[in-house]
Amino acid sequence: MHRVGVAILGLGTIGSAVARALTEQHDLIAERTGLQLVLLGVLERSTDRASRADLAPDVIATDLATILTEDGLDVVVEVLGREQPAADYMRRCLESGLHVVTANKEALSKHFAELLDAAEQAERALMFEGSVGGGIPLLVSYRQILATNRVTRVRGIVNGTTNYILSRMTSGGVPYEEALGEAQQLGYAEPDPTADVEGFDAAYKLAILASLMTGRHVHPDEIDRTGISGLTPVDIAEARRKNGVYKLIGRAEIGSGDQLTLRVAPEIVPNDELLAHVSANYNAIEVVGDRVGPVVLSGQGAGPLPTSSAILSDIVEAVRAGAAANPAFRRVTE
Amino acid sequence: MHRVGVAILGLGTIGSAVARALTEQHDLIAERTGLQLVLLGVLERSTDRASRADLAPDVIATDLATILTEDGLDVVVEVLGREQPAADYMRRCLESGLHVVTANKEALSKHFAELLDAAEQAERALMFEGSVGGGIPLLVSYRQILATNRVTRVRGIVNGTTNYILSRMTSGGVPYEEALGEAQQLGYAEPDPTADVEGFDAAYKLAILASLMTGRHVHPDEIDRTGISGLTPVDIAEARRKNGVYKLIGRAEIGSGDQLTLRVAPEIVPNDELLAHVSANYNAIEVVGDRVGPVVLSGQGAGPLPTSSAILSDIVEAVRAGAAANPAFRRVTE
Repeated sequence: MHRVGVAILGLGTIGSAVARALTEQHDLIAERTGLQLVLLGVLERSTDRASRADLAPDVIATDLATILTEDGLDVVVEVLGREQPAADYMRRCLESGLHVVTANKEALSKHFAELLDAAEQAERALMFEGSVGGGIPLLVSYRQILATNRVTRVRGIVNGTTNYILSRMTSGGVPYEEALGEAQQLGYAEPDPTADVEGFDAAYKLAILASLMTGRHVHPDEIDRTGISGLTPVDIAEARRKNGVYKLIGRAEIGSGDQLTLRVAPEIVPNDELLAHVSANYNAIEVVGDRVGPVVLSGQGAGPLPTSSAILSDIVEAVRAGAAANPAFRRVTE
Repeated sequence: MHRVGVAILGLGTIGSAVARALTEQHDLIAERTGLQLVLLGVLERSTDRASRADLAPDVIATDLATILTEDGLDVVVEVLGREQPAADYMRRCLESGLHVVTANKEALSKHFAELLDAAEQAERALMFEGSVGGGIPLLVSYRQILATNRVTRVRGIVNGTTNYILSRMTSGGVPYEEALGEAQQLGYAEPDPTADVEGFDAAYKLAILASLMTGRHVHPDEIDRTGISGLTPVDIAEARRKNGVYKLIGRAEIGSGDQLTLRVAPEIVPNDELLAHVSANYNAIEVVGDRVGPVVLSGQGAGPLPTSSAILSDIVEAVRAGAAANPAFRRVTE
């Protein structure tokens, strides 16, 4: 048995789920992989959150420096959310010789080149399976396809909140505002739903996928972005007349002359495509490689259980394979 | 750049495609992964096949011993097909300290425990992504889910030939014999279609998935198997009346009391499930984990291009991560 020291930065919904999962899945993971995951430190400044999480008090720290001095630490899980200080913290952890696992698509997509560079310099893994597609084993699949294929297109439904809203508008005949309200009641949408419904969240995720596809840091600001808040029942009916259904699609596509199209926008997906049948809060991504053809992956794209599952498997892979497990094969250049 | 010596056992359709891919994808793989894959040896006794493959004559060998003495050899790709001598050859390669990559579901499913044991003893990778689901990154995904989830069900369409036939019977209104004839003309079905239409091929693949799920060697003979040759237009119409569609489903399911159900049989899949919309010669597999929920992967399940893509990425992973890349986390016991 090999003991693996883990720290968590941030005890929000995902961080708390990871802390619980480390206990609940401890024996399963040990049996499957021979690794004993042990929580050594948690960075959380809110005493409320810290006390709700039911952790030993000596595990909680209020600054990163304390975490970094922890003996036997191998992997840091960054789930603070937002761009900063998350991006700085990840860089510092890598520079301190720790593997970093994150589900923070905003910090990652905005600092991708810098963070991959830090990981490469330190010969540590930077893992981020939970940042796109929640628990769907998307990046590990994408990496496998990218190793041996020219990938010319990746597109998909990468935001569960908007997919829930559009599904309700389509199958329930409900107008946008009502569907949004339902999503908020179910906890799928935030009180301020802007990041989801205006396509920011999808753009962060698409930027990560596009960067891996092209080998260049695609910043989310480069993505042509339209949300779903302008869609009306008339649009929904038009899609049905055209034998299709509206989905918020993120799309990165290399056309003739190596022109790169980057777009998040509502699109009418024809009913004879698998993506048209991915509903509720599910995600689905299609990757097209020159040898494998189109491959589709679908599953729950968010939520504490699926995302913590992705984070735990990232921890396992980081420890087993080290920098060789990194979803980005090489430095993504600025 | 790290030079990787590769040998191929068997120059059938898949073996020839791998030989071509090693040349065609050489630069792409080197750029992505830093690995230069070099073909050092090919085992093929048919001089016809060997000459058609357009390889340097000194690469061809007619016995395994010659291959095993090749200087600088790292990975052996076994694509002989059938149970023997393939299984014995794989064991001998592992015992000689070589990584083994195979797409041979029959040999693997019948000798799984023995081969994993040999890989573990030798601390080498035994990779088999191409054996189930062709180019779909299925096993790498499955492995990620298995690391951190209790998986209680895996089911899916794992044979493209029968899915093509059933799709033609459903959407084309064609009877079985005619759909089979079309599949044979397109090269999807063999002149003797028994292995596909009677469910043997699906049973080999399901045995591999079930073994990985349970940690015990599930032999294909344990699987309750029914083919599609008995399905009539009356059955197809009945499925439509029930708002579903016939698919040949392989299913491994752990029920209450840890009872394991293992079955390959035609099932009516309801239209509100993603699997109902997977048609033509495509495959799709659903894995249900206690944390991630249901995850579906779909793509081309066979053919030389997709399968050689899976084989090449297996070579890359075997070299990068060694035994840590093995899709089976631990020894699967007899």
